[in-house]
Amino acid sequence: MASGQSLVPTILLLLCIVSTAVAHSIIQVVSGDGKIRIDDNLYCESWRLSIETNDFGNWSTVPERCKSFVQDYMTGDRYPSDLEFVALDSLTFAKTVELTGDGKDVWVFDIDETLLSNMPYYATIGFGTETYNETSWDDWVALGEAPALAASLKLYKELQQLGFTIVLLTGRDEYQRNVTVKNLLAAGYTDWETLFLRATEDEGKKAIVYKSEKRAELVSEGYRIHGNSGDQWSDLLGYPVANRDKACMPNHVAILCYQVVYFNPSRVG
Amino acid sequence: MASGQSLVPTILLLLCIVSTAVAHSIIQVVSGDGKIRIDDNLYCESWRLSIETNDFGNWSTVPERCKSFVQDYMTGDRYPSDLEFVALDSLTFAKTVELTGDGKDVWVFDIDETLLSNMPYYATIGFGTETYNETSWDDWVALGEAPALAASLKLYKELQQLGFTIVLLTGRDEYQRNVTVKNLLAAGYTDWETLFLRATEDEGKKAIVYKSEKRAELVSEGYRIHGNSGDQWSDLLGYPVANRDKACMPNHVAILCYQVVYFNPSRVG
Repeated sequence: MASGQSLVPTILLLLCIVSTAVAHSIIQVVSGDGKIRIDDNLYCESWRLSIETNDFGNWSTVPERCKSFVQDYMTGDRYPSDLEFVALDSLTFAKTVELTGDGKDVWVFDIDETLLSNMPYYATIGFGTETYNETSWDDWVALGEAPALAASLKLYKELQQLGFTIVLLTGRDEYQRNVTVKNLLAAGYTDWETLFLRATEDEGKKAIVYKSEKRAELVSEGYRIHGNSGDQWSDLLGYPVANRDKACMPNHVAILCYQVVYFNPSRVG
Repeated sequence: MASGQSLVPTILLLLCIVSTAVAHSIIQVVSGDGKIRIDDNLYCESWRLSIETNDFGNWSTVPERCKSFVQDYMTGDRYPSDLEFVALDSLTFAKTVELTGDGKDVWVFDIDETLLSNMPYYATIGFGTETYNETSWDDWVALGEAPALAASLKLYKELQQLGFTIVLLTGRDEYQRNVTVKNLLAAGYTDWETLFLRATEDEGKKAIVYKSEKRAELVSEGYRIHGNSGDQWSDLLGYPVANRDKACMPNHVAILCYQVVYFNPSRVG
């Protein structure tokens, strides 16, 4: 991988300590600065898993040493493969839901990095290795040119065909409604029931609080949330949880939990 | 990787459809049976992520096509690297906890694939691709020869040095207590406060129910559960949750959530 190639110039010595498969130390590299560290690619694979499983906790930016790794992940085959896999997970579950036909059976979607990809933007800020810049982000959103994530667009239409009512819940601000709607339509998303954006009173709220409040509103209005798809834990945790959660995983509603490393860190949590 | 090499004989044609980085289809392979499918390694990477994030839902056995992938993962550098990474995540969090010194500050550990590795056993059942066999599992446990997971043993001792009280919570049965204690001591684990095993009345309970009940017992006895380390979601979900959860992730207590693909599927959930 490119991340491995970029390491080459700094590698002075490669030590591979082998003992048992279980207890052996991971490959370590003595870099140009003389410090022993594990191979970048191995480190970044583990870092990504730690992020995916939410073990890592809060984080600010993608480690500089993982820039090539994240770029390779996003622009290569793994990202679309991962997206297709979780979309299939979601559809498989969705087909088990008995819909009432009253239009109250809901599937909630986040927008950024769930329905739309902002990779063109993230590519300009080092794939998450550079500090978030709200101005440049808002400028990108204002363009309304974020492409659809193919697997998500397919899932979106399949859920509609099954009879689910689609609700969009995003951390974008209310003033961005028009361009967001324009972008969604241009990307192929149509016929959603509601689009929640952050109103003035929601500014400053943590995503998990804001999104939980909106899901609570839906439930109070008689909607039944069967699925909840997002790329960040803040999209999936909190209250109320989706039905799938109550059915098979108390305290967890991840159905379409994408990887988040390319997300602007300051927008996490 | 071996999984990729093992594919070669069956590959008749490799189609790589390239469009945009976001929307392109993943690499597809026309196998010997003429069916189009994605590359095994790509499929297994996505399958693993889907398992790790609990998006996949319930599953029985590791897909046959992922046997080599799982074997490579377990016997290569990635597994120990992942274990070291989440152990560091856990220690980093643990150091932020203010201990009272009354011995009631607890860190809960699962045993199998968390403190001890049963890879020698899983290697005999196709790394999870073969159906679970309770008899062969019990025979393996009876040997008391499961080695320690190096990163977990290090974390275990570091947590003790910080002053945490260690509680072990396993799905093993009460009649396996003696051999389990013998195995743990031989692997280097010492001085835990309590070891919970399934009593007769716990048989048949789902892991998430049984483990939640035991955590509730601890809390009722005045213990404060700060951390909860396990390799399966059933180790981490349910009630009550660890303090870290309340601090940063409502409804989720994954601190040390290992990958589970090599686990005997019938022991999941």
